[in-house]
Amino acid sequence: MRRIFFILLFSLFIIQLGFGQYKDKDLSNLMPLPKKIELYDGKFIIDKDFVVSIQNNSSKRIEKAVTRFVRKLSNETGVFFKHGFPVKQKDHISPFKIAYKREGKLKLFEDESYILNVSSKNIELSAPTDIGVLRGLETLLQLVRSNAEHFYVPSINIIDSPRYPWRGLMIDVARHFQPLDVIKRNLDAMAAVKLNVFHWHLTDDQGFRVESKTYPKLHELGSDGQYYTHEQIREVIQYASDRGIRVLPEFDVPGHATAILTAYPEIASKDTTYQIERNAGIFHPTLDPTNEKTYELLSSLFEEMASLFPDEYFHIGGDENEGKHWDENQKIKKFKEQHGMKTNHELQTHFNIRLQKILKEYNKKIVGWEEIMSPEIEKSAIIHSWRGVNEGLPAGESLIQAIKLGYQTILSNGYYVDLMLPVEDHYLVDPHPKGVNLTKEQEKMILGGEVTMWSELVTPVTIDSRIWPRTAAVAERFWSPREVTDIESMNVRLENVSLQLEKLGITHIRNKEVILRNITKSNDIRAILALSKVCEPLKKYTRNKGGMEYQTYAPFTLFADACTSDAKDAKAFGKLVSQLIEQPNDKKIRIQLNQYLQRWSLLSSNLDDFDNPIINQIKPMAENLSKISYILNYYVKNNKITSAQLEVLDKYIEMAKVPVVDVELVLVPSFEKLIKHLKKQEKVMNK
Amino acid sequence: MRRIFFILLFSLFIIQLGFGQYKDKDLSNLMPLPKKIELYDGKFIIDKDFVVSIQNNSSKRIEKAVTRFVRKLSNETGVFFKHGFPVKQKDHISPFKIAYKREGKLKLFEDESYILNVSSKNIELSAPTDIGVLRGLETLLQLVRSNAEHFYVPSINIIDSPRYPWRGLMIDVARHFQPLDVIKRNLDAMAAVKLNVFHWHLTDDQGFRVESKTYPKLHELGSDGQYYTHEQIREVIQYASDRGIRVLPEFDVPGHATAILTAYPEIASKDTTYQIERNAGIFHPTLDPTNEKTYELLSSLFEEMASLFPDEYFHIGGDENEGKHWDENQKIKKFKEQHGMKTNHELQTHFNIRLQKILKEYNKKIVGWEEIMSPEIEKSAIIHSWRGVNEGLPAGESLIQAIKLGYQTILSNGYYVDLMLPVEDHYLVDPHPKGVNLTKEQEKMILGGEVTMWSELVTPVTIDSRIWPRTAAVAERFWSPREVTDIESMNVRLENVSLQLEKLGITHIRNKEVILRNITKSNDIRAILALSKVCEPLKKYTRNKGGMEYQTYAPFTLFADACTSDAKDAKAFGKLVSQLIEQPNDKKIRIQLNQYLQRWSLLSSNLDDFDNPIINQIKPMAENLSKISYILNYYVKNNKITSAQLEVLDKYIEMAKVPVVDVELVLVPSFEKLIKHLKKQEKVMNK
Repeated sequence: MRRIFFILLFSLFIIQLGFGQYKDKDLSNLMPLPKKIELYDGKFIIDKDFVVSIQNNSSKRIEKAVTRFVRKLSNETGVFFKHGFPVKQKDHISPFKIAYKREGKLKLFEDESYILNVSSKNIELSAPTDIGVLRGLETLLQLVRSNAEHFYVPSINIIDSPRYPWRGLMIDVARHFQPLDVIKRNLDAMAAVKLNVFHWHLTDDQGFRVESKTYPKLHELGSDGQYYTHEQIREVIQYASDRGIRVLPEFDVPGHATAILTAYPEIASKDTTYQIERNAGIFHPTLDPTNEKTYELLSSLFEEMASLFPDEYFHIGGDENEGKHWDENQKIKKFKEQHGMKTNHELQTHFNIRLQKILKEYNKKIVGWEEIMSPEIEKSAIIHSWRGVNEGLPAGESLIQAIKLGYQTILSNGYYVDLMLPVEDHYLVDPHPKGVNLTKEQEKMILGGEVTMWSELVTPVTIDSRIWPRTAAVAERFWSPREVTDIESMNVRLENVSLQLEKLGITHIRNKEVILRNITKSNDIRAILALSKVCEPLKKYTRNKGGMEYQTYAPFTLFADACTSDAKDAKAFGKLVSQLIEQPNDKKIRIQLNQYLQRWSLLSSNLDDFDNPIINQIKPMAENLSKISYILNYYVKNNKITSAQLEVLDKYIEMAKVPVVDVELVLVPSFEKLIKHLKKQEKVMNK
Repeated sequence: MRRIFFILLFSLFIIQLGFGQYKDKDLSNLMPLPKKIELYDGKFIIDKDFVVSIQNNSSKRIEKAVTRFVRKLSNETGVFFKHGFPVKQKDHISPFKIAYKREGKLKLFEDESYILNVSSKNIELSAPTDIGVLRGLETLLQLVRSNAEHFYVPSINIIDSPRYPWRGLMIDVARHFQPLDVIKRNLDAMAAVKLNVFHWHLTDDQGFRVESKTYPKLHELGSDGQYYTHEQIREVIQYASDRGIRVLPEFDVPGHATAILTAYPEIASKDTTYQIERNAGIFHPTLDPTNEKTYELLSSLFEEMASLFPDEYFHIGGDENEGKHWDENQKIKKFKEQHGMKTNHELQTHFNIRLQKILKEYNKKIVGWEEIMSPEIEKSAIIHSWRGVNEGLPAGESLIQAIKLGYQTILSNGYYVDLMLPVEDHYLVDPHPKGVNLTKEQEKMILGGEVTMWSELVTPVTIDSRIWPRTAAVAERFWSPREVTDIESMNVRLENVSLQLEKLGITHIRNKEVILRNITKSNDIRAILALSKVCEPLKKYTRNKGGMEYQTYAPFTLFADACTSDAKDAKAFGKLVSQLIEQPNDKKIRIQLNQYLQRWSLLSSNLDDFDNPIINQIKPMAENLSKISYILNYYVKNNKITSAQLEVLDKYIEMAKVPVVDVELVLVPSFEKLIKHLKKQEKVMNK
């Protein structure tokens, strides 16, 4: 039997037949979905003789990648391989052959395509570049499955290449410093889902995170001792390069610069002293664009950093500079008048143009947040579109503006995973949304996008659980054909990919329980774990009102930190409620509902065993949930409910809508849906 | 009320009264136990105004340590402190004052004592050195408790100092490389239990793990690319120094040197080529002690390393050199004859004396495994005693020999945590065992001891679960008065300390489930988790027979890797069985036994949901356990059992004794005990 999936060519066909959901078990670990898949009956069995051969002119990158691949495969299958390392093709007859034409360059538009053919006897992976081979190895690892006797790869042919050349993840290491191991494991995860740009947000009001040899006060006074040395930066770049990932550094100027001004107040727009910022938000400190010393410092600093970071692009930030200190400074006001500048945006453009020139000398093109957009900026610049509905603007508006002005552009609006929104919200955002008509040339100006992970509310313990697994879904948006949009399929595959990510060291699953043990001071976390699966941290930065509730040194081992978006049990319960309303007589659904409601109705008494201020803050919420669950469970078991009960429920639901300890009980909509249904039914039932 | 615990002076009194068990909740997180404790009623409440002041001349070490302390306290309590950083005493009136006389040196015999006084209004921590303050901060953190309203520290006076000045943990990074984050989190854990020597086993047959600028082939050819750069070494030394921990490097010669010879075969005793060793065990490759080039290389290398590692001691290994290649080499044979050497030990002593001279030039004293012992070695050397019953020798024999020869000595025999033995086995080993009579002067020659973590069978994922929590109990042996030996007290406190260690990033708890999810390929690990709590990895290296079953690249994500020593449920079940035999009519005991047996009797069917080769290897063991549990549960519920059932049980128990997938079902002794009891009772019951 031959099962073919041409996503690109036959997408409608696939979706209609349900193939788009990839319920075929053999494909249920794949993310991002490849462009073209032909699946056959037959299996390549992984046993102790498994060995990989590489064509003669093997690159260092390939050798390392294949060695990592063999380790992962051994750990995945528990098979003790005779060969722990790849072999040369000429020395060895191997069933798994890797071939590529040349070493890939870590450059925009580099070829990342690959062809993977698996039969019951052979695996062949070929690609124009070694980077393509890397992508193919990740696909192959996702294809590993098992039956009772063997681990195997199904017979399959895959032809694959990315939709967009720029597929990024930005990590903010300024608000909360992220040590090297956090960065490395996230690079591993990025590689697993074929992301290829690590955007390193290195400076902000809360910290300057790179050692500077030209201006050492930057890291000495601007980082609380938490910064990367040159060697560490090089280590990360090498680590990324080994995985076919570019590293894009960001030095955010002229705003978001408190840490810089803490070290060098002489280039500030306001004559005062500065201290590293401990809160979150938009602050006034900004560089003085009329001071030649500013350019002197930036020029030397960028020269140093340009030689440290090999990528041809350099992100200069440029966002959220409101210019209050510019308005207050007479010298700057005069400068604006002298140069006929009417707005601060014009002044910032003047600044940006100078930076663009400086960086051009060091062979760098600039990337900047959308505020840098201005027709005077050279067209080699990339506009990083980020604002949208939250900022009172149409989503991704600047992306289209940039294209029309002739700039290449990348999209981050819609991909702010730190907003704690459901995965679907991000997954369905397309860099080129339907209804936006672009010429072929214009379409090419969209290079791709970046997930952004701002770190005001995360530490090394929690950051992974904010980035993953949702970023894997966005990675599919960037890589896979536009037509791949089936939510159900995505959710099934994301659950599996989430487990794969854990094996790379990503802590999104394990650290939930770590935090809960910290809260209970106990190994017994069953009750609070159940609660954490129906609660989500407050969304859209409402957790940190005005940026002033949490300081960088605040505790981030709270219940909200153990909770994640897409709370699992709440999602599952929601589905069951919908099913119950449609099939009120289905006993299976009632049994499952009963299991959840029973557990939740006992939550409150189970939490009583624990007694400390943190737990005690959570208890009222648990108690309320237990009461609601108890009544609803009465209905589920007996299929009747009284008006009095419904009335009480209404009261409890209102209470359940109030956030407690920075989380919301995300069961509320499902409860309301069920109660609404019950009210309709009430008379019928109680006859 | 005043509750006083003078462990040192009144130890008998304490143990008799049960105080030795420290069941007092206020002390149940303490490990190692301080020398003298006076506990009062009253609490110092931790609220948002909490702030620490340090006397004027504050060292960098203290500033960093107090900042870490404040972070930990905030994370522990969830309290949002106004002050994220320590303040200067003169600027601020603070209820928590820290004072010390001078900056401590990271040297043997440095003063680590401290005095901690906590009242309801103040905390005072004072010490002769800042290192003493560090020790006191760890004690203080262990004293934090809560009631419903507050987190607090009980009013208490503590006077404390260590029993031994050398309290070490050795980590072998040669067999399996351990990245910097593993080392750092283990340094944090060491500091938490007041260990003060990190012994870094950097070279062995399987790898040379340090960048060498004088002999770069050492790390280029001898490490598979897995080594520490000079900067990284310095980073670790600084990290350790910040925590009051010395770093003792070990370069193991002349044996255990395959990696060195892979790079420089010209100094080998056998003229051949060498490859990095992938198996475990004792191998023949050894340096040529008659070749001047050997000393040339070691001299330059040690000069480089001596300047990198500031500690006054330098570990030269020296163990397990069997000299087969010496015997085979005519030139070496002749050399021995010329110099009147009869044994290879004499030749190795010749080698060691030269190394001692070389290292003396670089201001280093040597430490060596006990095989270096020989009267010709200068008395500045420290003898590291490690052999014992496993090696066919009396436990710790060399320790006493060394003392009698006039050497200072440290003990590791009895502290090999990689043997996977129960914590008690290590806890009760005393560096100065009862019955060994030493003069006061001789007693002082015992400097302390080291836990050794050999890494043949661990990876960064599993290593913490082998080191911790058992090493905390050994740390108590090294720090606390000799009389602190109550096992029950230790076990209660160890359980709590284990949770504290997790907060430092130690992965011993969390990674169990990570591995189990890898095995089930699922988030549902309940069944296999239950099984893992009654299984332990095979002990005393029998897991890796002859060192040839596992290669360094073998999978270490197997069921055995998820299991640990001191399997929790097996321990608890064993206690219940003893209680049942003593109190056969106690219903509570039967209820608890029933809970365990019920769970285990369902194990087999619950595992049936999973189907892959790894799980399928485990299933027979689970099935057998389920059958045993089913029958025993029948007895527990009905208080009767038949001869036929007992006969079947015998058969199943025999099967249960056979190790499966490198683990043993450690319930067997408890089952046998219960069955023996039942057989005695049989006739009575079945009347």
